[in-house]
Formats: sequence, structure tokens, C-alpha cells
Amino acid sequence: MTAMQPIRAKRFHADARVTMSHGGGGRATSELIASVFAPHFANPLLEQGHDAARLDRPAGRIVVSTDGHVISPLFFPGGDIGSLAVHGTLNDVAMGGAQPIALTAAFVIEEGFPLADLERIAASMGEAARRAGVPIATGDTKVVERGKGDGVFITTTGIGVVPDGVEIGPDRLAAGQAILLSGTLGDHGVAIMSQRQGLEFETTITSDSAALHHMVADMVAAVPGIALLRDPTRGGLSSTLNELVEGTRLGVLIEEAAIPVKGEVASACELLGLDPLHIANEGKLVCICEEADAQTLLAIMRTHGEGTDAARIGTVTAEEPGFVRMTTAIGGTRIVDWLSGEQLPRIC
Amino acid sequence: MTAMQPIRAKRFHADARVTMSHGGGGRATSELIASVFAPHFANPLLEQGHDAARLDRPAGRIVVSTDGHVISPLFFPGGDIGSLAVHGTLNDVAMGGAQPIALTAAFVIEEGFPLADLERIAASMGEAARRAGVPIATGDTKVVERGKGDGVFITTTGIGVVPDGVEIGPDRLAAGQAILLSGTLGDHGVAIMSQRQGLEFETTITSDSAALHHMVADMVAAVPGIALLRDPTRGGLSSTLNELVEGTRLGVLIEEAAIPVKGEVASACELLGLDPLHIANEGKLVCICEEADAQTLLAIMRTHGEGTDAARIGTVTAEEPGFVRMTTAIGGTRIVDWLSGEQLPRIC
Repeated sequence: MTAMQPIRAKRFHADARVTMSHGGGGRATSELIASVFAPHFANPLLEQGHDAARLDRPAGRIVVSTDGHVISPLFFPGGDIGSLAVHGTLNDVAMGGAQPIALTAAFVIEEGFPLADLERIAASMGEAARRAGVPIATGDTKVVERGKGDGVFITTTGIGVVPDGVEIGPDRLAAGQAILLSGTLGDHGVAIMSQRQGLEFETTITSDSAALHHMVADMVAAVPGIALLRDPTRGGLSSTLNELVEGTRLGVLIEEAAIPVKGEVASACELLGLDPLHIANEGKLVCICEEADAQTLLAIMRTHGEGTDAARIGTVTAEEPGFVRMTTAIGGTRIVDWLSGEQLPRIC
Repeated sequence: MTAMQPIRAKRFHADARVTMSHGGGGRATSELIASVFAPHFANPLLEQGHDAARLDRPAGRIVVSTDGHVISPLFFPGGDIGSLAVHGTLNDVAMGGAQPIALTAAFVIEEGFPLADLERIAASMGEAARRAGVPIATGDTKVVERGKGDGVFITTTGIGVVPDGVEIGPDRLAAGQAILLSGTLGDHGVAIMSQRQGLEFETTITSDSAALHHMVADMVAAVPGIALLRDPTRGGLSSTLNELVEGTRLGVLIEEAAIPVKGEVASACELLGLDPLHIANEGKLVCICEEADAQTLLAIMRTHGEGTDAARIGTVTAEEPGFVRMTTAIGGTRIVDWLSGEQLPRIC
């Protein structure tokens, strides 16, 4: 509950670690914030130095989304918990059809965590936020005793503004709509699993962690009538699609051959016994739209680095309501159930 | 990153515990949310079933504030981590002069945590939010392995709207302004410490955890020109006042005899070797205003249950810039430094 005030920056020793007093809300907390976070997060909102950051009157309805990040390991090929926490929440806001205008960040740090690692994470968050053009407006820092946490957990919350005329939501789904996927499945989950298990693949697989709101802005501008956007994170594409249709009068039919998966990710999945449909992605979106808009949206997605491999992967159906079915590569059709347990713990 | 969708409620066994699969983002996560959180948080925003909750276009500038809650123990006299997480963030929003319109809640739960305790916390959060008249619009649930967390951590973020004409902020401070305090100091911190140390006092001391935004609404309506509002939480009143003046051309002079402290809290502080000025409060505010408005504001505060003991405790000064001074009960003046370390770890 202490404002992130950029006062009293201090130079810490290279081997310094987080202590309980850094979470006390007194001078040590202010020093930590001023020294480790403020230099990397610098922006006019944060510099208001108030517990609550004040934003201008937004030009539209607002959306809000929050996500706790507990990924392990904290650093991985293609990112770290800091950039992931920024991208993940920006994407949740964008999936509401909104453009993010501010982020907040709350840290729960384990006593003894190296300050150098904390600064590396802060730098990565700051860079991700700057690239995205969205300020980290306010934050909070707590410290828990050694053995009562695991390095650092970061909860980010995003605020966004929905342009007038955009009405994205599950109630907009209808039979016959096209299902688009912005790129390859499984990159994030497989990158994390490979690192955990110490596996080396011929090509290093990196996380797809990326912010998608710029792509979404272009999509929504061209086709304001997009029915639904979702990011297939924890639980993967299978959970995303099952969540949408379970208990409704609609079903989903996807085509295995149309779903983009990188060769090395497919191989790693085989080796690890994983199904790419169940694996978390951190830089992909599912877009459901009228059939007539599908080609326009695919073309727009492909103009963005994050959407190079965009593909149409299926259709919303009136048949088999409540179920996700897949036409397999060998010609049959199978039910795609959602992840029933925890396939990849602490993936985000 | 899974929406808090109110689907598939399930009856858990009374001894059931949180498992890693409850954090996987699949069916078990949805069941946990539907069974434990959704019934207590029920509101139209949450029922949108979207990762990002959509709010109406706000009628003014918005403020946003976030806080991680890691309090130990989770249940304490006068509240628990759930009600605290709601009150704490509502108060941070209110300190911006804003009326809160929505909350988000992100949970990091330790594997093995009793579901019954989680539901008790959810019920308490839901009740605190309903009483406050502010919906929990969206949320997130993560699970970490046993020994990598400590029961449950809750990060809440609040969004509020600032009425036009209200311009509260540290830049509004000026010499001669009056400093008001809404009630007694130290109740929260002493309640927690007593419980941790197994102390029994003649009167049971309870936390002052409470939402202050209704009182703030009345204060701001009567005196839109309030200069500053702050809640003296972690670090206590001493840190709050020191943060305000450090590095500025202003000082603060407070009067020890004017600061309300309950008799049993004062006794407990003596016993525990604590200074009430350093102890966290969770239902108190400091208001800085023009001298001419002080009596009006005190009268308004006293009409609220949370402001019964409101008092004028000091003045902003041009003398001794950068320092907080206190006229002591025996007539001298001493410097009130802020908390340099961690006096009461995990107090919020």
C-alpha cells in the first residue's frame, strides 16, 4: 500500500538480496522501489507518486483484466516472468477488443531473492511495457520469508478502452462462423518444459510470449463485428474452445491439418508425451468471425510479426452442441476434450 | 488467464484441499472457480465470463491502484485476508479522491490449502465487496507447489472515478494546512501481533480493517478542495508523513496528545515495545486540508462509524522542511523518523 515513489535511489551491492525490511513499507521499501523499479518503469503516471494512479477520462467503455504470474523457471528462452506478466495481461485486455491504456504490477518477493535478478526482471518488464506503449502506472511490493514463496510472483492488471461499435463476447457466437488462429501452437509450453527437463533440441524452441494488442487494433478497425477473441494460454487451445461451447447450443469442428505447429515443437511434444492442443501459448489468439470476414482478418494478421502463420482452423457448428471435434490428419473425427488436470504446472 | 466463468459448480468434500490441477487452467480450475469463488462473488460483471471485464464508460477521470496481500495469519480478530484485500484496495482508490467502481482479485494458492478455508476467505471477500457496493469484476487463480507459497496470497486491483473538480495530490500541500486523522492508531497491527504472539489482553483488540470510500465521498462532496488523503498502512503514520515531506520545502508538526490511541493498544504497544506511530492501520485516513475546512471535515468524518474518533493532529509547516516533528506529551519536540526496517512483517 506504499506508492511507487521514485525517491532516494540507492546503489546496491552486486550480491545484495531482498530482505524482509524491503517489504516493511518504510525507508527500505522506498529505496528498493526507487532503485530497482522506478528507473526501468519511468513514466508520468508512476511519477505522480500516489498509491492510486490517475488516468485521463477514457474515450469509451473500459475493460479490466488481472493475472497472477508464478512461472517457473523465472527466466526462459524467449522471455522471463517480467515480460510475460506484461504481455499476458495486455493480451487479456486486447481479447476484450480493447486497447490497453495502463498496467499495474504487484510483486510478492521471497526473502533472499537476488536483487540483480529482480532488477533484470524489472528491466524486462519496463522494456516490454515501453514497446507496447502502455505505462506501468502503479505497483506494490511485498516480501515473504524464505521458504514461503518462490523467488518472485507478479500480478499484473490491465485497463483498456473498447472502441465504440465493438461488441466482442461469447454471446456473439453463431453457427457457421469461422475460427482463425494467429500462429503456431505450443511454443511457450514446450520452451518451458524443455528447459525444466534440461532437454536440448536441434533448434532451440523459444516462447512465443508477445503483446498482441497492436494486431488486434488493426483487426478491430477493419472488422468491428468480430464475434470473439481469446488467447489460448493455460489449458491450451482445447480448453479455450471447450470453455466457449460447453453448456451452449453450439459446437466446434476444427481440422488437425490446418493447425500450425512448428516441426521441432511437434517432435518435442512426441518426445515429452504432450498434446500441442493442451499446451499454453503466450503470443497467440483465436478469432471467431463471420465467414465473409475471414480472409480480410487473416490478411491483416499476416502483416504482423505475431501473425505470420495465421490460419483458418475450423468452424462453429450447430451439430454436436457442447463438444469440440477435430477432423484428424488420417481422416477420422475425434472429440477434443479439455485438459482435465495439470499437464504443465506453473507455465505462466 | 482463465476467465472466472460461473460454470460447473461442484460439491467438494469438507476435507478437500487445493491440488496443482486446480491451477492448470482446465476443467479443475473452472470447477474451483465455479464452486468456491463464483457463488460468493456473484455480480453481472463477473458473469460476463470474459477474461477482461467490461465496464460502462466512466463519468470522469479514472484511478487505478493495486496491492498484494500476504498477511499472516490469514484469519485474525476483526477480519481475514479476504476482507483486508477488499478494504485495502478500496481505500487506496478512495485516497485518490475517487469512488471505486470495480475490483479484480488474483489468487496464488499453495498446494494442499484447505478448500474450506479458501471458501471462508471467498465468502468474506464477497461480503466485503457487497457491503462496499463494489463488484469483483474479474479474477485469476494460480496454484504453486507445497512449500513454494504460504496458504494464499491475494492481489486486488481497484478502479475508481474521480469527480470533476477534485484535485487531490502531494503537489497541493502548503504550509499552514491542517492535518486530520480519522481515528485511533495501531489497532490493526496490534491485533495481528497479539495473535501471532499468543498474547491475551483484557479487552480483545480487533483490526480496524474497513472500507473508507463512503466517508471519503461525503468529505469530497463537502470540500472538493481537500489537498491530500492518505491511508497510514504499512509503516504507519510516521512513514506516511515522512513520505509526504521528504525532499520537499515543507515540514510537519504533529501533537502527541492529539493523536487518538486506544488505551489497550497503548498498553500492548508498551508491552511489545512498539510505537503506535509506526504500526499499520487498515481503516484510517490522514486528510490534509485548508485550515478553514478542518472543522467541517472533522464533523463529517465523525458522522461515520469509521470516523468517530477523528481528530486534528497537526499542521503543515514551512519550518524544518523535510522533517516530521512531534510536540510530545511532556512538552518537548522530537523528530519522528520513519520506520527504517521491518517492524511487523506481513502485516497486510
